Amino acid sequence: MNSELKADAEKHIPEGYDPQLYKLRHSAAHIMAQAVVERFPEAKPTIGPPIEDRFYYDFDMPRAPQADDLSWIEARMREIIKGRHPFRVREVSAAEARELFQNNAYKLELIDDLASEAPNGRGSRLTVYEHDTFVDLCRGPHLPHTGYLKANGVKLLTVAGAYWRGDASKPQLTRIYGTAWKNRTQLDAYLKRLKLARARDHRVLGKKLGLFMFSEKVGAGLPLWLPRGAVLRNTLEEFLRNEQLRRGYEPVITPHIGNLELYRTSGHYPYYKESQFPPMVLTEEDGYLLKPMNCPHHIQIYAHRRRSYRELPVRLAEFGHVYRYEQTGELGGLTRVRGFTVDDAHIFCRHDQVKAEIRDAIDLALGVLGALGFEDFRVQLSLRDPADSDKYAGEVENWDSAEDAIREVAREMQLDAYEALGEAAFYGPKVDFMVKDALGRQWQLGTVQLDYNLPERFDLWYTGADDERHRPAMIHRAPFGSLERFIGVLIEHCGGAFPVWLAPEQVRVLSISKRYESYARRIHARLIKAGLRAHLDTRSEKIGYKIREAQLMKIPYMIILGGREQEHEQVAIRLRSGEDLGSVPVEAFLERINSEITRSTTIGRLADAARQS
Amino acid sequence: MNSELKADAEKHIPEGYDPQLYKLRHSAAHIMAQAVVERFPEAKPTIGPPIEDRFYYDFDMPRAPQADDLSWIEARMREIIKGRHPFRVREVSAAEARELFQNNAYKLELIDDLASEAPNGRGSRLTVYEHDTFVDLCRGPHLPHTGYLKANGVKLLTVAGAYWRGDASKPQLTRIYGTAWKNRTQLDAYLKRLKLARARDHRVLGKKLGLFMFSEKVGAGLPLWLPRGAVLRNTLEEFLRNEQLRRGYEPVITPHIGNLELYRTSGHYPYYKESQFPPMVLTEEDGYLLKPMNCPHHIQIYAHRRRSYRELPVRLAEFGHVYRYEQTGELGGLTRVRGFTVDDAHIFCRHDQVKAEIRDAIDLALGVLGALGFEDFRVQLSLRDPADSDKYAGEVENWDSAEDAIREVAREMQLDAYEALGEAAFYGPKVDFMVKDALGRQWQLGTVQLDYNLPERFDLWYTGADDERHRPAMIHRAPFGSLERFIGVLIEHCGGAFPVWLAPEQVRVLSISKRYESYARRIHARLIKAGLRAHLDTRSEKIGYKIREAQLMKIPYMIILGGREQEHEQVAIRLRSGEDLGSVPVEAFLERINSEITRSTTIGRLADAARQS
Repeated sequence: MNSELKADAEKHIPEGYDPQLYKLRHSAAHIMAQAVVERFPEAKPTIGPPIEDRFYYDFDMPRAPQADDLSWIEARMREIIKGRHPFRVREVSAAEARELFQNNAYKLELIDDLASEAPNGRGSRLTVYEHDTFVDLCRGPHLPHTGYLKANGVKLLTVAGAYWRGDASKPQLTRIYGTAWKNRTQLDAYLKRLKLARARDHRVLGKKLGLFMFSEKVGAGLPLWLPRGAVLRNTLEEFLRNEQLRRGYEPVITPHIGNLELYRTSGHYPYYKESQFPPMVLTEEDGYLLKPMNCPHHIQIYAHRRRSYRELPVRLAEFGHVYRYEQTGELGGLTRVRGFTVDDAHIFCRHDQVKAEIRDAIDLALGVLGALGFEDFRVQLSLRDPADSDKYAGEVENWDSAEDAIREVAREMQLDAYEALGEAAFYGPKVDFMVKDALGRQWQLGTVQLDYNLPERFDLWYTGADDERHRPAMIHRAPFGSLERFIGVLIEHCGGAFPVWLAPEQVRVLSISKRYESYARRIHARLIKAGLRAHLDTRSEKIGYKIREAQLMKIPYMIILGGREQEHEQVAIRLRSGEDLGSVPVEAFLERINSEITRSTTIGRLADAARQS
Repeated sequence: MNSELKADAEKHIPEGYDPQLYKLRHSAAHIMAQAVVERFPEAKPTIGPPIEDRFYYDFDMPRAPQADDLSWIEARMREIIKGRHPFRVREVSAAEARELFQNNAYKLELIDDLASEAPNGRGSRLTVYEHDTFVDLCRGPHLPHTGYLKANGVKLLTVAGAYWRGDASKPQLTRIYGTAWKNRTQLDAYLKRLKLARARDHRVLGKKLGLFMFSEKVGAGLPLWLPRGAVLRNTLEEFLRNEQLRRGYEPVITPHIGNLELYRTSGHYPYYKESQFPPMVLTEEDGYLLKPMNCPHHIQIYAHRRRSYRELPVRLAEFGHVYRYEQTGELGGLTRVRGFTVDDAHIFCRHDQVKAEIRDAIDLALGVLGALGFEDFRVQLSLRDPADSDKYAGEVENWDSAEDAIREVAREMQLDAYEALGEAAFYGPKVDFMVKDALGRQWQLGTVQLDYNLPERFDLWYTGADDERHRPAMIHRAPFGSLERFIGVLIEHCGGAFPVWLAPEQVRVLSISKRYESYARRIHARLIKAGLRAHLDTRSEKIGYKIREAQLMKIPYMIILGGREQEHEQVAIRLRSGEDLGSVPVEAFLERINSEITRSTTIGRLADAARQS
């Protein structure tokens, strides 16, 4: 019985999570809860799961634990670990469970939910796990005994507030985060990574570098781009816009709202109501919605006149700002926002053009990642689950040929690709770019998706060579995905030290003293004329202070001008790394920086390099 | 008595409307109503005022008049005119008026409204005007008799639908438009202008040239920019963005929505509720509004950190898309829309910097107008009404110095400027650019406005040299005003033949036959490499047909390639006007077109030229 329960519990480990680490962290959470209750006898434990790299436990407690409480709890946890107390599981009836947790309203609420979960069956199985003096309503799994944890592989991290069941209308709880690893070496490596990540936190850097801000009066999750951030965004957009023009994309610009009728046709309303801003209601029938995606608008443009097979593919591109209502708890910096810009394009093409279009879209996405210094990525081919073919929209032969096309392209381009069966959207197969950043974290950035659903819903067609109506294929693609999220990841990836072509300020000209101010002005004017984003610092501060400031702002090039430089009509070059490149004539510097910019933004070469890496 | 009533009536003539023309059109409306009632005895006249250049009358009638009805009515009007029937006015009591119009529910509603208009006084004065067999409830003024009209100075124009009192929930009426002038010469000139305007109607050209579209499913008044229109917009934006960077503006990007709290502080909500999209309501207290203007967002950016007097002026610029809920009847093409992009900037500066900032903003606006071929404009200095100083926000000394600064700048720049007392906003004086288009119509385009209200409401400040807090001055300025409206006016101004730097397609390369296709491709590639927006037409259509098509699309340059051109490695150049410029080497053509582009977009020179014109 016990072993059957334990085997059952193993099923709760999420795919891709190391089972041993999962159990270590789950058990550590129980051990921590025991220590917390010993320190704060009034504390009511609520829930405490493992999460990525960490675990937490939420308590209803009279006050948040202070540093000395946390030391005490950590020390007590080490004792419990050393006690090698076995974790025992047993099944209980709802009545028994209610008896056990009679003083804990939170657990009682959970028990009621679990007991009513399968009303026509026998109800969900209720289990409790016990170790030492602590018993918890829990589905497991856990370690055999507390000694499986290493006392020096566990650490408490932070304390935060959290709402019961994530609902802001419910009581606020105290959440204690901790982490647990197989040994001290792993723990230390994680803590080092964490420190590095904190130093690179895009929320911190975004503020330091003057890139973006949030304002309560504007609203949570709605970034306002400060001048340097706006320059960065405009540069990214211009880079992609030019590349897209070169590849035959046509720009369009559409409103940020649409009549509800549009979203009734597309199926985005009322089905996805929960994740959207509420509609702007004029009458019971009439209203507008902030657009949650750009496709329905682009479809209106495709469909506003007859299309012939000769003019396909039609590739409509827009940096389209969309809005989705993420829950408050989910918001944090740029990686999760309520308004974001998709570098969107929709390609309407014939089915015999699908392969070439996918190929070009992948090529573009690779080029973009390369130009931004992402070199470690894999390509996920998200295909149908062959065992469950009913749940997909569209004709089987189109799916077959599209999936074949995706596979062939991946092979021909020698991509580091893997197939993920069952990961296709219901409306079509996808190609997703899974990118590892400098800290080893994986992000899903760009995407290329086929869509067999919307062309049906909007009854799209073109006139074929046979003079008959045909349904076009539709491809959604976005190399960045969301510009906001992409920039958030990029900031952390490069620690705010953007490649020179993208840096909001590319060069800062520093004069050593007032005497060289006019020379500095002349050099600065030359850089501006050459189209560089250069600032001038002729303040009468010490040169060391001015250099430090420029380094903190991660400006790629500093040009330092004093007597020697003025005399020889040269410029002394310094990198943000602190490296000193010596003095050269200004034209030589311009040549250097311009060739660096051209090299980084020439997509073809980069895509080649990326493919070979 | 009668003459007192007539003198009273004269007061109803709007300022700037020629009194004689006003009376001509008002009397023509009555004469038309008489003829309509004779033709359709069931028709109920409702209201019929003079409007700009025209008059109309709305009838509740069983069917819309057809061409033969209109001819009949027009002929009958000529007879009535020749009858020289005097217009007689008399005052009536509400009871008498009700008796007179007992069969016309519309007039009865008007009588009720007028009678209740001044409930604590004697009620509004009710007057009726009579001529021949027709009597109308009317406040005048009218001509002495119908013979003052010239029979060949009057013409009926169009028939349209209109709602009673502009309210879509009320009955639909039939509106007949006509026009009346002092003589036939004036009428003919107007009809010619009208024809020209129709040929240049930006709604028609916008469709023909593939610039923009509307979609009912997206919503009325919400333009979708087609590829050529999007290129045009992007080019305009890039032009101004670069010029602004050169002048020390800093770009920002802000969301399209804001929390209601933001607009409660700014005063835009709930006061201007009528002209906005309804709020997105989450709870009774909490909600979001589509932004009706960009200022509150930019103010958040100004105020997000301390500002020192040393860093002022701060100039924040954004192509900010805003939304306002215009009534359906007011929508038409791009000149009146529900979503539009302001080429907005907000300048926060010290009061001693106001003059220099106004000067630079005017200089920029002049440069922009010049680059777009608007050469006929006046500058309106909108100042306080000195007799009514209570209604203005802000300190008197700031107003005084700002108005002085505006006057001085206008004088120093030798602007064709006039002062409009009482035309200032309550929050500050303005400089407005009143532009005449090629058809002689006047448009208010760009604007520069001081604001003494928002800095107070948002409690903005900077730290002065004295280490104290000071209130900054705030300037709103937009050289285009609304990009949508500006482009609408521009299309009509140039009849769709955009200056070459702005044309969505600058050059079309046409091959005379298939034999020259590869030469055409080579030339096309050279143009693309040179950064031109060039398309290639190698279809096997007749060259005359291909040229006609390019001309209809108003493409500035056609390059026509046949045997002679290929042999001599030249290109034959043709303008959209039909002018033939002969053959030159492709490099000579590039030099010509590039110098034309540089010349048109070099702002300084143009501003100079504009000032001298």
